Amino acid sequence: MTSLRVGILGGGQLSRLLCQAGRRLGLEMRVLAERPTDPAVRFADVFREGSTDDEESVVRFASDCDLLLFENEFVPKPVLEALEPLGARVQPAPPVIGEIQNKLRQKRHFREAGLPTSPFVEREDGETASAFVERARRLLEDRVVLKWAELGYDGKGTCVASSPAEALAFAEDALARGRPLYAEQRVDFVREVALVASRSLRGDLVTWPLVVTRQERGVCREVYGPARLFGVGEVAERELNFWAERTGEKFRLVGTFALEIFEDREGRFWMNELAPRVHNSGHWSLDGAVTSQFENHLRACLGLPLGRAESLYPAFVMRNILGPAEVSRGEPLPRPRVEAAGVSLYWYDKAEVRPGRKMAHLNAVSTEAGELGALRDRLEKIDLEWRAALAKERT
Amino acid sequence: MTSLRVGILGGGQLSRLLCQAGRRLGLEMRVLAERPTDPAVRFADVFREGSTDDEESVVRFASDCDLLLFENEFVPKPVLEALEPLGARVQPAPPVIGEIQNKLRQKRHFREAGLPTSPFVEREDGETASAFVERARRLLEDRVVLKWAELGYDGKGTCVASSPAEALAFAEDALARGRPLYAEQRVDFVREVALVASRSLRGDLVTWPLVVTRQERGVCREVYGPARLFGVGEVAERELNFWAERTGEKFRLVGTFALEIFEDREGRFWMNELAPRVHNSGHWSLDGAVTSQFENHLRACLGLPLGRAESLYPAFVMRNILGPAEVSRGEPLPRPRVEAAGVSLYWYDKAEVRPGRKMAHLNAVSTEAGELGALRDRLEKIDLEWRAALAKERT
Repeated sequence: MTSLRVGILGGGQLSRLLCQAGRRLGLEMRVLAERPTDPAVRFADVFREGSTDDEESVVRFASDCDLLLFENEFVPKPVLEALEPLGARVQPAPPVIGEIQNKLRQKRHFREAGLPTSPFVEREDGETASAFVERARRLLEDRVVLKWAELGYDGKGTCVASSPAEALAFAEDALARGRPLYAEQRVDFVREVALVASRSLRGDLVTWPLVVTRQERGVCREVYGPARLFGVGEVAERELNFWAERTGEKFRLVGTFALEIFEDREGRFWMNELAPRVHNSGHWSLDGAVTSQFENHLRACLGLPLGRAESLYPAFVMRNILGPAEVSRGEPLPRPRVEAAGVSLYWYDKAEVRPGRKMAHLNAVSTEAGELGALRDRLEKIDLEWRAALAKERT
Repeated sequence: MTSLRVGILGGGQLSRLLCQAGRRLGLEMRVLAERPTDPAVRFADVFREGSTDDEESVVRFASDCDLLLFENEFVPKPVLEALEPLGARVQPAPPVIGEIQNKLRQKRHFREAGLPTSPFVEREDGETASAFVERARRLLEDRVVLKWAELGYDGKGTCVASSPAEALAFAEDALARGRPLYAEQRVDFVREVALVASRSLRGDLVTWPLVVTRQERGVCREVYGPARLFGVGEVAERELNFWAERTGEKFRLVGTFALEIFEDREGRFWMNELAPRVHNSGHWSLDGAVTSQFENHLRACLGLPLGRAESLYPAFVMRNILGPAEVSRGEPLPRPRVEAAGVSLYWYDKAEVRPGRKMAHLNAVSTEAGELGALRDRLEKIDLEWRAALAKERT
């Protein structure tokens, strides 16, 4: 019995939090990342410097691991293809990642699996940007969201057009970059919710309580819950858990994954996107749940029994600490200062702050459901004080 | 607002776990330790190499910290004296550490504070080992435990004599080493329990649930609880919480501390020893309690509000992973392998295993009180498998 060697492609905060969870399971955590200053390196047992986009360095790294995991789904196709022969030693399987990294194919799968998702229009071969936008506006009753089918994240590659001209400009830019493009009907949501689940190699599935997510300019700002506090009933939550089961089976997913879901004015739910990995909407589980999404990702991919995903508290909040607009600077950086009990800071040790960059997240929990609003205010205040400190030290 | 700089004298596992807790509070954690391979260094923001026994290096280190903490109470008197002028920037205050590091003085304080502690006999100036042992045997009705007044820990410096000859040999050895010596009456306990508490600069106190501790050859092997499951009633636990309050006030203690207590056949409790620091009997709180003993130690010494100390689970166990007898070897070391959900490993990254050395601890929790026995078995099994792996890899 030597320790199992688990490798992760990528050295960001998700990789870092996976390394911390893996160490608690007695695993030897290995990281392939570009820089020794990347967030995960400090918590890895073994660090290999190299590009995660290069087949050769990835395959060499994988050959020293008993299990290889991805930090995210943005893996170049040649890398996925080179990893396919490794079989179950790579999770989720490379073809699964290949399907999910294309959002248009996601939409088709959702439809096939009978999951409600907003109508969408594919661009036809050779169709000009203006012809496509015109056709999409007509078919989608003028409520058009344009999306890159691939490589979009954190609002990048998504255009909720407020005018036909804006839609056309986005489409022309996408075509000029060679990005595959599609359109979907905008859902006028009252709330975005997320369901995080882990599905193990054995096919077992656990789901964390449904949470509310709030984005700013396409980037996750806050997650709080449980969504039950906001009128999402038990029946609805059971239905969404069933969506997670369906999704897991349809994509043959293994590990932790997240469903991003819209709730509309009529209380109906719409599947938006699927992320085949640990997700920002599950970070609260580090403090708030019996088992974290990171630990269960490892358990699921290793075929170990999954830990329970119930929340330990009737109210919890996660808030991302993002680099403010127009601030780019290196260390020494002030850190958010936590004084209240029940609040934890996860500082990612990034070497510099950049506008919109995820620098850290804060978790807060309370044993009183009625405290949720106060928890949100508390984290916002810590965030604002940090921004003030950052601005002050700059001048 | 730059981050507060918190320094710790010492780089062992207690320091490491304090560093991890401090990072979550947004503190800048600094460590003074002898070797860059010491357990805490990996999780410190700033590492200074140096001796914690040397006044000059300690004072230099302290001058770059907003708050200085001790990893344990074994601090040489000249260091304590050199730190005294720093005032509230050192916690607990050096004179408090000075009082507590002498177990004979502890006993006197317990007696003064009205806390039950077994009768004890001080050695008189110039008294020979044999005269002292004879007198102690007579006064303590032949139930004699000899102890070094200072520098004893993990069974070292304690002699539960099974014969007068053994007692005499221990006493002679102590005198030859120049160790102050005393004798106390042996308590025929049915159980050892421990109460961990945090007392803040503001005087607030929180106590974790009382736990059962089990030692092997004087070293903590296992901690489990809550003690309520073993017939310790609410009234008794309230009484012991009151002991913690009294102790905190009597010694003017700040931070986390532990009371080691005997329970005798009649269900009476006897104060054994006080440890003015985070303690092995509180490690379970990392997974099992709302707030860990490490986080509250920092909160207490910084004057921040204390976190709640309730347990999150009706059953929890901590087990130390100790180097087996006759095994001394360096890396690569196998790590205990955790498969069951609800179990966490805290591997200290020590560069080599030595007989009896604390290499790691395991925590396990369950949502069913009836599972406590199964949890204990599970951790024992993981421990035994690790020992087997260690033996195998050695041959």
